[in-house]
Amino acid sequence: MTAANDSTPTRRRGRRPAGEDTRTALVEAARAVFAESGFDGATVRAIAARAGVDAAMVNHWFGGKEGLFTKAVLRVPFDIDEVLESVTAGGPENMGENMVRTFVSRWDGAGGEYFVALIRSVTSHDDALETLKKVLVSRILNAVAAHAGSDRPELRAALCATQMIGLGMTRYVARLEPVASADIETLVPTVAPTLQRYLTGDLGDLA
Amino acid sequence: MTAANDSTPTRRRGRRPAGEDTRTALVEAARAVFAESGFDGATVRAIAARAGVDAAMVNHWFGGKEGLFTKAVLRVPFDIDEVLESVTAGGPENMGENMVRTFVSRWDGAGGEYFVALIRSVTSHDDALETLKKVLVSRILNAVAAHAGSDRPELRAALCATQMIGLGMTRYVARLEPVASADIETLVPTVAPTLQRYLTGDLGDLA
Repeated sequence: MTAANDSTPTRRRGRRPAGEDTRTALVEAARAVFAESGFDGATVRAIAARAGVDAAMVNHWFGGKEGLFTKAVLRVPFDIDEVLESVTAGGPENMGENMVRTFVSRWDGAGGEYFVALIRSVTSHDDALETLKKVLVSRILNAVAAHAGSDRPELRAALCATQMIGLGMTRYVARLEPVASADIETLVPTVAPTLQRYLTGDLGDLA
Repeated sequence: MTAANDSTPTRRRGRRPAGEDTRTALVEAARAVFAESGFDGATVRAIAARAGVDAAMVNHWFGGKEGLFTKAVLRVPFDIDEVLESVTAGGPENMGENMVRTFVSRWDGAGGEYFVALIRSVTSHDDALETLKKVLVSRILNAVAAHAGSDRPELRAALCATQMIGLGMTRYVARLEPVASADIETLVPTVAPTLQRYLTGDLGDLA
């Protein structure tokens, strides 16, 4: 984790300058409101109210709703290198299990709202899709697939994307039971073998 | 296929009454425009222009944009019984492969726009999520899992949902290569074993 991580809990409030507090509160509130309402449905007033600050602070610190959206949703709220390390550290044969653990534990924290906000913004912002593709796939899954060392790494990364995007959609957006409420120890033995096969297994006879 | 299927090609135009032609053209145009722009971004004018009819026809036949959305996106454009038959007819051991073939062949046709329109409307319409959950999961995947005859059918249906929703998101919404352009004979050997395991395989040691 980097010190600048946006999802750091705000317990250290007393040691921060007030401006940073306000910005952190607005970013966290924005993620929640964008997740609930999407970009078009979210209002500056609702975000400021949830953060407990004056609506004028949104313009002051972010130049408006669009700027706040960029900061809260289009910038990734976790350290990509740390995610990569967490998925790959156990070697190729444990990547499936580590991928489920790493993503679901982050998404279940502050990241769940981030994931939902990103998906719900796909309509209004082509950038939201590009973020999903560039960060989840290009920077994380392609690197994991390269570490796995198997043939056709691009196809393997994209197949992992189908499972991880679908898991996120089902658990956080559609909230479909029993996947929505399943604890991580239920998800690991069910979903990890899929990812493990996509990364290092036999993909069948392709032309 | 039922005769009333909305995705029936419009070649039989000469044999239909003009009103039905107009409605079919508007529904098809609406699906395309909602897929591109989401509900909020789509205008009656744009839909009517794409259908080649006067914008007043939207109010005349559907009572406005909301009514047209209900007809074009919230009502499922395929015969659910026929989909179920196609997935289950080969018996439990072929359901994974048949699920990929059945869904991808329908989505690659007119259904791709339908899927994208549904996903892009999640922000504006809670109904869109309910449709995804009720039709894809409750009516199709739960029935398939019941046919498969294994333990924990609800969990198995939801796991199939993670893979199928993720495959649809990756291929049609994110358009991530090489999954976006892969032909069905590439997708079947890669993805079908996942679905087959979710339906009839070992899901690991659960508490």
